[in-house]
Amino acid sequence: MTIKDVAAYSGVSVSTVSRVLNDHPDVSDGVRERVWAAVHALHYVPNNAARDLVRPTSDSIGLVVRGAENPFFTPIIRAIDETAKAAGYTVVLHQIRAGEDELAAAAELARSKRLLGLILLGGSTDYTAERTARLGVPFVCCSFTNSFGTLSAADYSSVSIDDERAAAQAVTLLYERGHRDIGILLSAPDDRSISELRCRGYRRALRENGLASDDALVLACGSYDMSDAYRCVRAAIDGGLCFTALFCISDAMAMAAIKALSDAGVRVPEDCSVIAIDGIESTLYTIPTLTTLVQPKEAMGRRAVGLLDAQLHGGGCRRELLDTALREGGSVCSRRT
Amino acid sequence: MTIKDVAAYSGVSVSTVSRVLNDHPDVSDGVRERVWAAVHALHYVPNNAARDLVRPTSDSIGLVVRGAENPFFTPIIRAIDETAKAAGYTVVLHQIRAGEDELAAAAELARSKRLLGLILLGGSTDYTAERTARLGVPFVCCSFTNSFGTLSAADYSSVSIDDERAAAQAVTLLYERGHRDIGILLSAPDDRSISELRCRGYRRALRENGLASDDALVLACGSYDMSDAYRCVRAAIDGGLCFTALFCISDAMAMAAIKALSDAGVRVPEDCSVIAIDGIESTLYTIPTLTTLVQPKEAMGRRAVGLLDAQLHGGGCRRELLDTALREGGSVCSRRT
Repeated sequence: MTIKDVAAYSGVSVSTVSRVLNDHPDVSDGVRERVWAAVHALHYVPNNAARDLVRPTSDSIGLVVRGAENPFFTPIIRAIDETAKAAGYTVVLHQIRAGEDELAAAAELARSKRLLGLILLGGSTDYTAERTARLGVPFVCCSFTNSFGTLSAADYSSVSIDDERAAAQAVTLLYERGHRDIGILLSAPDDRSISELRCRGYRRALRENGLASDDALVLACGSYDMSDAYRCVRAAIDGGLCFTALFCISDAMAMAAIKALSDAGVRVPEDCSVIAIDGIESTLYTIPTLTTLVQPKEAMGRRAVGLLDAQLHGGGCRRELLDTALREGGSVCSRRT
Repeated sequence: MTIKDVAAYSGVSVSTVSRVLNDHPDVSDGVRERVWAAVHALHYVPNNAARDLVRPTSDSIGLVVRGAENPFFTPIIRAIDETAKAAGYTVVLHQIRAGEDELAAAAELARSKRLLGLILLGGSTDYTAERTARLGVPFVCCSFTNSFGTLSAADYSSVSIDDERAAAQAVTLLYERGHRDIGILLSAPDDRSISELRCRGYRRALRENGLASDDALVLACGSYDMSDAYRCVRAAIDGGLCFTALFCISDAMAMAAIKALSDAGVRVPEDCSVIAIDGIESTLYTIPTLTTLVQPKEAMGRRAVGLLDAQLHGGGCRRELLDTALREGGSVCSRRT
């Protein structure tokens, strides 16, 4: 059974049948009814591949994940995938390494795959309109926003936590538990990423609580990798650096830090407390369980799709900030002050 | 500049230009050269969207991940994504939960997205030809194979480790280090998954080393979840079960087991040794570092794409078994025998 049989049965041309099957408006109601009657009478099953060939647009959105080895992203990818599918989109995946240019990758993907829009999961916080213009489609920044960039509010949507505020909360918690010598483990203090934002929050909390900043306590390991985090903390301890608490900008880095402290003979939390931001599953099983500010990962993924969907349906751009929630583990102890 | 301008400039019809742009064979070399000369002279950029409309097939392969929360899959997904892109494929992602039916999901994806082929990452080991016929396209099982099914060799490709053999190696290592009371932490001993295969390897190693099987030492936690693994081990210890070594069928479950043992006052490795299979990054940072048989995850992802690519180019189906490599950590100690 082919489209020709349907055309012959209903007494119209093949192209008219095609127009009916593809919901073109330029067909009279009478012809439309006749064609559908033929389709049903002949039990004709439209060939989806052929139908797709004449579709004017795809239903695909791109998901560009920068630093996919980060376990923090896994539940977000999952939520994006589920939500996008429920909304009728196909998700085209593109994973790149932490150091790669997500905008170049996204622009190429959007062009070659006829994407409707893009979700960038992980990325830089300093976009300019010139650079994002290459994307050519609406996009949503997920887990970060344009803190250091020059995009106008109409250029993009984003959903993230308030990184500076969350970092300040974590450090203030350490202060309230009696800690005065508080270090930070980060990628770099000035890399225009969430590392810089969380460093700002760290410094702000120290300042607001009357503590002096000490650059020696800023442990910059140069990446978000666990291996770099481990080496950096181990070198600091072996070099004689003293602190009673360490704020780590990610759970994965905190896991490596706890291991480095333990290997160096520093007990967590008795000798050194550790706190982080992210809240991944694995750090429920560190010894001790990590105390951390949990990001709402599923909600973040769902909202990323919602924001993109709104843009694709003519809605405006929005920037949403979600709250973190404290997950008390056993990695922070109180000190007498 | 449109395709009509190119047609007019080169003196051929629009459909001929289209055939040239899409590499159809039924165009003479002379016409082909004339059209490309016009394309270059006019700086015509073919509209990809329009080109895709007349392409007979898509370039998409589907990646169905069952149990995407498993960190073991992350580097495999990454390798599949990179290798597939380098080979010119678009990867359409579909993540489902551990308990869901990957064949139903894959069949729907293949149909709706006009996929060329499928990679199933995680899945059941008991497929029948009736069930896989719904897929309608070539497929590769990645990280598992059809151990309990009835597929014929021409029906599918797969790349995995030899699960039974790897499990036997792990348990034999415990035996050689002096352990005689060896437990296994698994999902279920008879669920037709890699859990059952690894249980077979466990029993085989006990038998070959002259040890009796004791069903009490088979800790079936009902899933691959860390939370279930934790509860199961904790309940066993609290219930008075004694063993000096525990073989865990996955690294993630071993991480939860180490935590449960620690929380129950059992020291790892002094009181109980732990070994696993997988080799994920996080278990380099457990305390102690996990001793585990590392699966070649990147190679597995690359080979999955290679096997599918071969099938798509008229090659046959193959089943490949890759070796694991022992990563010595600090979670296994020797006992005097």
